[in-house]
Amino acid sequence: MNLGLTVYLIGLLNLFLALSMIVPLAVSLIYRDGTTGVFIQAIGLTVLASLILIYFCRRSKEEIRHREGMAVVALGWFSAGLFGALPFYLAGTFPTYLDCLFEALSGFTTTGASVLTDIESLPPAILFWRSLTHWLGGMGIIVLTIAILPFIGVGGMQLYKAEVPGPVADKLQPRITETAKTLWKVYLAFTGAEVLLLHLGGMNLFDSFCHTFGTLATGGFSTKNASIGHYHSVYFDTVITVFMLLSGINFALHYQALTGHIKTFYRNSEMRFFLGVFAVGTLLTAWSIWQGGLYGPAQALRHGAFQVASILTTTGYATVDFELWPYLAQMILVLCIFIGGSAGSTGGSIKCLRIILLLKHSYRELRRLIHPHAIIQVKLQGRAVPEDVLSSVWGFFILFMALFVAASLILAALGLDLVTSFTAVAATIGNIGPGLGQVGPADNYAHLPYAAKVVLILCMVLGRLEVYTVFILFVPEFWKK
Amino acid sequence: MNLGLTVYLIGLLNLFLALSMIVPLAVSLIYRDGTTGVFIQAIGLTVLASLILIYFCRRSKEEIRHREGMAVVALGWFSAGLFGALPFYLAGTFPTYLDCLFEALSGFTTTGASVLTDIESLPPAILFWRSLTHWLGGMGIIVLTIAILPFIGVGGMQLYKAEVPGPVADKLQPRITETAKTLWKVYLAFTGAEVLLLHLGGMNLFDSFCHTFGTLATGGFSTKNASIGHYHSVYFDTVITVFMLLSGINFALHYQALTGHIKTFYRNSEMRFFLGVFAVGTLLTAWSIWQGGLYGPAQALRHGAFQVASILTTTGYATVDFELWPYLAQMILVLCIFIGGSAGSTGGSIKCLRIILLLKHSYRELRRLIHPHAIIQVKLQGRAVPEDVLSSVWGFFILFMALFVAASLILAALGLDLVTSFTAVAATIGNIGPGLGQVGPADNYAHLPYAAKVVLILCMVLGRLEVYTVFILFVPEFWKK
Repeated sequence: MNLGLTVYLIGLLNLFLALSMIVPLAVSLIYRDGTTGVFIQAIGLTVLASLILIYFCRRSKEEIRHREGMAVVALGWFSAGLFGALPFYLAGTFPTYLDCLFEALSGFTTTGASVLTDIESLPPAILFWRSLTHWLGGMGIIVLTIAILPFIGVGGMQLYKAEVPGPVADKLQPRITETAKTLWKVYLAFTGAEVLLLHLGGMNLFDSFCHTFGTLATGGFSTKNASIGHYHSVYFDTVITVFMLLSGINFALHYQALTGHIKTFYRNSEMRFFLGVFAVGTLLTAWSIWQGGLYGPAQALRHGAFQVASILTTTGYATVDFELWPYLAQMILVLCIFIGGSAGSTGGSIKCLRIILLLKHSYRELRRLIHPHAIIQVKLQGRAVPEDVLSSVWGFFILFMALFVAASLILAALGLDLVTSFTAVAATIGNIGPGLGQVGPADNYAHLPYAAKVVLILCMVLGRLEVYTVFILFVPEFWKK
Repeated sequence: MNLGLTVYLIGLLNLFLALSMIVPLAVSLIYRDGTTGVFIQAIGLTVLASLILIYFCRRSKEEIRHREGMAVVALGWFSAGLFGALPFYLAGTFPTYLDCLFEALSGFTTTGASVLTDIESLPPAILFWRSLTHWLGGMGIIVLTIAILPFIGVGGMQLYKAEVPGPVADKLQPRITETAKTLWKVYLAFTGAEVLLLHLGGMNLFDSFCHTFGTLATGGFSTKNASIGHYHSVYFDTVITVFMLLSGINFALHYQALTGHIKTFYRNSEMRFFLGVFAVGTLLTAWSIWQGGLYGPAQALRHGAFQVASILTTTGYATVDFELWPYLAQMILVLCIFIGGSAGSTGGSIKCLRIILLLKHSYRELRRLIHPHAIIQVKLQGRAVPEDVLSSVWGFFILFMALFVAASLILAALGLDLVTSFTAVAATIGNIGPGLGQVGPADNYAHLPYAAKVVLILCMVLGRLEVYTVFILFVPEFWKK
């Protein structure tokens, strides 16, 4: 591990963060909401800290190997949260720095769990920054899951590696830069499209931007207390449902489709699985809430589709309080928490690709019982999946579950009931946002004890970084030469 | 698949079942509780059915290969339930045959989930039969997990196979017979010891037998409405806690210890893990209920130890209503549901051996990320665990979770709340018995809709038979020559 290089890179990352704060600074100037000073201070402090880090570690600029890549990823998110919380703190948005950090990391990890009790009372520039953290986090995730993780070999992500021939080995930089640029173009195009569609439908430009940030990053922060339910609009619900689903699909696949490779897109088995789960989940949910007498069939379908898309993609927007829905509908949403979006999307949680591999693997094991001496391979789109890839998917899955169990246990020890403990942890590890019980869609995370907030902050970051990437810092060998 | 041979063997199994009904018949004669006719009829019907099966499939007596072994196991439990339910049905214990089947299979699978609302109102012979189904089921499990599954290669159980050198291949019979006899001796010795200890403590002989059956099989049926809590006795609580723990340990290991190989016993890593989980769980639970102001430290330790042992070993006895405990204590019990006893014990659920392998596997994957080109093996007691064993553990785990999810979904669709759905399914797949919510320790399963009972019956049998063994019947290739 080259710690100097890692710190240097984090310094650069923070400089970029300071740069991005210019956008809310501009917003504060337009709205004259009194937060201009806040953003100038925040930018100043962040730049100062970045320059110190860069200056002292400057000499360490060497080749980035995969260990440094992982360390930057793991520590970078924390550092972004630390400095990204500054505007909230300086504006006095929350009583403590921990709350500011919770909100900022909930943003950067695209979780969308909030400790705000009255969103609409905040100055526009603060709200804009809050939503922008989602969008920036989403950009980070795309690079992370498509350009970095496959080369590090985290939890099945190396499946993509097979598609990139040639000796890439330990040289990460050129490939990452190139891939990132390509994918960000798609991200920007979708951003523009959604802002336009929302604005054309009558949403003001400010809210259109904020809700687009929350959608594309599958984050879930809204500028309204009642989330998307504020608008009571079939049009907005539909636009956002479509863009949530798009954001839950692998961005590399979108790039293929946009560059004319439509076949690659619609033949992709993960994409099909994802949309299949969405379709089945929507139908069952709609049936459940229709049978429950809450809505007519059309309304049931509308709210069912929105909510299933929102939870499955790990966005977390709400149009209604689904805690009042029948148990079947609630159960489906709880299960969607654990599925999540596609690998390579901005969605979080376990992810469809891994669910597919887990299911195929267990069917393989059933067949192996019948043919004990046969060699049976797990196949994905006609190609055999290497055993070590399966093995790393399993490793991911069990770390995910172990984290889920440990964090739930701590929350229960802090006095939270079982439903709240389990769903708060699931909703943060999976980067969804709202859970059930005391952290349901009509509630927030403000009233939780501080110790619980610390645990949930860790869950958000660990979940976002595919668990492995953070846990690895605790393996002693990682730090050896 | 040789279906004729399978049916023949099931006929033999049923004949043994009819034979075992002579015991409650004797009880009915002693207590003159009016059920003598019931048992005579039940025996008659079972013998008749068995003879028909045996007669028509007699010619098929050939070598038992592993497919037939699996089919007998999978279908045998169902058939035992079907005929074991006869006494309940003929005595009019329950309104429907389905309820009788639920109770009988809950017995044979050593689950202990009951559809009885007033246990103490039943005739002694019926209660005795109810408890005896546990004991018989426990005997079946021991043979299954130690003598059959390792050779079939189900879900990691083949780890034992390594210890049996020589060409065993497809010939199951001699080995099973020999192993079974040895282990049943241990089972009988423990049975005698517990009956004696309970009786010496002042429990009448009838209840001593019934509670011993429930303990050793990690079943949980009691003859009292308040379960073990009926006695308010530290002595009984202690004896039963110790025997529950003994029953949660691999019986092959007990055999080693009893024949002087104490080192083999106390060096066993699964046994250590099991007792470690028990110790940590007990301390945390006791701390939680003591802090909750429910008991003094000594009482907290007593009830904590009893309840953790009861759930961890998947017995399901209760001394108090743990649904009134603080959330931390409840959370620990919920987590214990998913751990379960040792492989080769009468305990159910995922089992300690698999939990150990899952955890070691994920740590291996972390290390592999640091050394991408190194070959790192998962070791258990100093020996490398073959990759295909790990693979089959994973297969088991995901089938277990898939079943858990699917069954919970159906229960929610039938209108049960999330806590009841999740815990009822977990408590039946894990063969524990009581859950939380509407199926808590102070409640029972009687009031559930019939469709839910059918689902839970399947969960009990699937859980007991390590999921694989039943699922395999649905793989088309299983039935081909």
